[in-house]
Amino acid sequence: MSTEILRSYLEGAWQAGTGDGAEVADAVTGEIITRVSSDGLDLGRAVGYARRTGGAALRELTFPQRAAVLKAAALALEERKQELYDLSARAGATRRDAKVDVDGGIGTALVYASLGRKGLPDGTVIVEDDAVPLGKGGTFAGRHILTTPRGIAVQINAFNFPVWGMLEKLAPALLAGLPTIVKPATPTAYIAARAVLIMEESGALPPGAIQLVGGAIPGLFDLLGGQDHIGFTGSASTAARLRADAAVTRRSARFNAEADSLNCSVLGPDAVPGRPEFDLFVGALVTEMTVKAGQKCTAIRRAFVPAARIDMVAQAVEAELARVVVGAPGADGVTMGPLVGLPQREDVRAAAARIASAGSVVHGDLAKVEVVGADPERGAFLSPLLVRVDDVARPEPHEVEAFGPVSTLMPYTGTEQLRDLIACGEGSLAGSVVSADKDFVREVVLAAAAHHGRILVLDHDSAAESTGHGTPMPQLVHGGPGRAGGGEEEGGLRAVHAHLQRTAVQGSPAVLEAITSERPANS
Amino acid sequence: MSTEILRSYLEGAWQAGTGDGAEVADAVTGEIITRVSSDGLDLGRAVGYARRTGGAALRELTFPQRAAVLKAAALALEERKQELYDLSARAGATRRDAKVDVDGGIGTALVYASLGRKGLPDGTVIVEDDAVPLGKGGTFAGRHILTTPRGIAVQINAFNFPVWGMLEKLAPALLAGLPTIVKPATPTAYIAARAVLIMEESGALPPGAIQLVGGAIPGLFDLLGGQDHIGFTGSASTAARLRADAAVTRRSARFNAEADSLNCSVLGPDAVPGRPEFDLFVGALVTEMTVKAGQKCTAIRRAFVPAARIDMVAQAVEAELARVVVGAPGADGVTMGPLVGLPQREDVRAAAARIASAGSVVHGDLAKVEVVGADPERGAFLSPLLVRVDDVARPEPHEVEAFGPVSTLMPYTGTEQLRDLIACGEGSLAGSVVSADKDFVREVVLAAAAHHGRILVLDHDSAAESTGHGTPMPQLVHGGPGRAGGGEEEGGLRAVHAHLQRTAVQGSPAVLEAITSERPANS
Repeated sequence: MSTEILRSYLEGAWQAGTGDGAEVADAVTGEIITRVSSDGLDLGRAVGYARRTGGAALRELTFPQRAAVLKAAALALEERKQELYDLSARAGATRRDAKVDVDGGIGTALVYASLGRKGLPDGTVIVEDDAVPLGKGGTFAGRHILTTPRGIAVQINAFNFPVWGMLEKLAPALLAGLPTIVKPATPTAYIAARAVLIMEESGALPPGAIQLVGGAIPGLFDLLGGQDHIGFTGSASTAARLRADAAVTRRSARFNAEADSLNCSVLGPDAVPGRPEFDLFVGALVTEMTVKAGQKCTAIRRAFVPAARIDMVAQAVEAELARVVVGAPGADGVTMGPLVGLPQREDVRAAAARIASAGSVVHGDLAKVEVVGADPERGAFLSPLLVRVDDVARPEPHEVEAFGPVSTLMPYTGTEQLRDLIACGEGSLAGSVVSADKDFVREVVLAAAAHHGRILVLDHDSAAESTGHGTPMPQLVHGGPGRAGGGEEEGGLRAVHAHLQRTAVQGSPAVLEAITSERPANS
Repeated sequence: MSTEILRSYLEGAWQAGTGDGAEVADAVTGEIITRVSSDGLDLGRAVGYARRTGGAALRELTFPQRAAVLKAAALALEERKQELYDLSARAGATRRDAKVDVDGGIGTALVYASLGRKGLPDGTVIVEDDAVPLGKGGTFAGRHILTTPRGIAVQINAFNFPVWGMLEKLAPALLAGLPTIVKPATPTAYIAARAVLIMEESGALPPGAIQLVGGAIPGLFDLLGGQDHIGFTGSASTAARLRADAAVTRRSARFNAEADSLNCSVLGPDAVPGRPEFDLFVGALVTEMTVKAGQKCTAIRRAFVPAARIDMVAQAVEAELARVVVGAPGADGVTMGPLVGLPQREDVRAAAARIASAGSVVHGDLAKVEVVGADPERGAFLSPLLVRVDDVARPEPHEVEAFGPVSTLMPYTGTEQLRDLIACGEGSLAGSVVSADKDFVREVVLAAAAHHGRILVLDHDSAAESTGHGTPMPQLVHGGPGRAGGGEEEGGLRAVHAHLQRTAVQGSPAVLEAITSERPANS
């Protein structure tokens, strides 16, 4: 890999922006991998190409045909995933981390391909429900249909999941018949671009179904309106800025945000040391802190444990964290890689210091880390950091997100206080309750539900098959209220429906039948 | 009625704002009816009261109990609806107009009460779907539940439907367990306030379930966040301004907009004079122009007819419009009342003049109108105005909304051009196709669907029972993409679901059973 400008894929061709671009460094060595720039690229033409060529091509296909296209693209990625693993390692991902992104993304696309084949009609229109009679004589009724907007899907992704983040948005858009323009995050844009290259070289996707632009997207939102869909994953502040654009506020482009949040995990009062749930809680917390070096929107940031048990939990987590080996992905024994880059490390250090100011550090050191197989200063290495905050009224652990291997342990004294503490997060993507006490679980889940897009209950019964606190599943909604962005992705076919326009059609039963009966697709 | 300040209903008490307030004039006589001001009212306390008292009271009730509350409130309004008719007349509404608002609102609330009783579980949690297996061993699965946010519903309404607009938002919010704060539009706030008074005096609603504030709401949005729901009906520019507030962009309060749009009606090529559909089209257009003096978000603004037939359609509509009698509601023979006020008349005149500049006036006069039973200058009277624009590429008829008895007749020469013309509206609440040719209907409806929240097909078969182009039905979605605000109201239980938080719950089958099985309600 050279330090050439990363090429964008626009209008069916790989094109390099001009200028110096933003340098992207290897997370492990600090070496410059590529530069990212969209200067000189014509985004207006790209949007036109998506609308004209991509939209027309996808609307020609029935839902099952689109599902077949998606499956072929996913299988092309499966075949060449080693390339993506190799690139991911340069972004700091261990093999375990890369699998979460790459295999997770491919698996998500395959689940959607299956849903599209089995769960959608052999046509281009979804009839959502039965006809609703609107008159006593039976001559007038209403029915809802879902059809493909004449628009495009723009996805703006976070750096942490360049493959999964792209595919989980591409899959429903493609099934819905919307062409996609991907704007990957700069630090890992080269991984997303390789995935697009693999799909493109496979010939699986119709022309215009996907485009990718590395770098800034000035003016792009000016071209978006009520038929378009914007899918955003990233920081709450960027979400707020984009959502205030006239494309959204004035022209009503659909905007779905999935933002970082201060996800919690709760240890039940029943889960004393010696009970399997105690170990499950400790293991899950350490996993969430260390997978992708804690750079996950869904990672556990706040761990609530019964006050009487906080010392024991702290000790147990400490013992596990002490076994974490930080270093270059692939180097001997390494279990946790670096953060994605040095600027990210500075952000995490600053945020973690603010959290730590509210309590004490149980494990880890913000300034110092032992590193295997790499230079700790050239690479973006950071030790896992467990903070303990006993004064739970302090705002920092509930408000400050350190987007790295950082979590805060806090005590609770009863379910009423626990409810309030959970709500202090002001909306999260994922929460978990680790307990075998079903009354406790029920009470906490129902109290926490309004603040969460997803809640995992972990106990001995399901542990072996549980997919874990931090893993969104394509069948289930991913997103959360408030701080988490207020959006909803995935959730099986819900995400496809969210890309379509729902229309109530009213008329005689014969008219409704004529409109909703399946016929060969046309655009 | 005096010219006292209209009292707001906050914290369980009727309270008058201070200062001069905004004068509200009788639409017919110009006499000042009341003044509206929120100066000196403590909206922060009102929000706290809603959250604390209203939310807690509603969360104590099961869905069927909330449905019973809603039904009782609706029946109280039914019993005293004459009061609302009488007040509506002062806002310019004929009895026919007032029924659309008052009876329409009560009917909507009753439909929701019925949906809540029959379609929702006897508890406080909705289990949305079957469990999805997430492991081969059957020990781990996921399921979606819908629960009540810990928030409030704020509704900001348009002047044209003070009763219906309030009830169609109150009904799903109340069923969902959210307390409501209503901010009615100033010109008809006194009608909404009377409706709230009637509900309050009936004792049907729990304390805090509804509050009403007349006048401005400075600072209110600063108190809203991710657990709250904002329902807006009104102009696109106000929608854009509110939607750009940090409550929405930063804290992810839910925001649903229903904005004015340039709704179209299409006459099919089969519907030649002599066919019933020709007359149905003409009748529907005149109805939509004159009911509520055309002050409906759903009214037909653009009437597309086959080019070869435009002269005949113009003549037929002209003949019908010539029979419209403008005047004081209730005066002898009057079929159309005034606009809501003189400022509104000025706006409509200005907008209509812009549209007319693109073509010619078929019927009506912006400057002059014959009026029965009132002074044409003191009241906000305006003649119905039919404009004809043959140069369909002119932007005015597709972009300028005259929110009064104003429509534009335009020719089309084939379905391809028709599609483009429909799309020029950039998103509408309601469209209609008047034709008995099912192939034509199918083609146009499927092409227009992506631009519409609702499409009515009108033909001889359904005409007798058809609810008409302009009437939203509680069972069907109301809202539309793009210019129409991108939102969705009503649609049966969809609106209730839209006020709830969807959460994916994961765990063992036994855990999911424990969480989703119904038990007595608790908060």
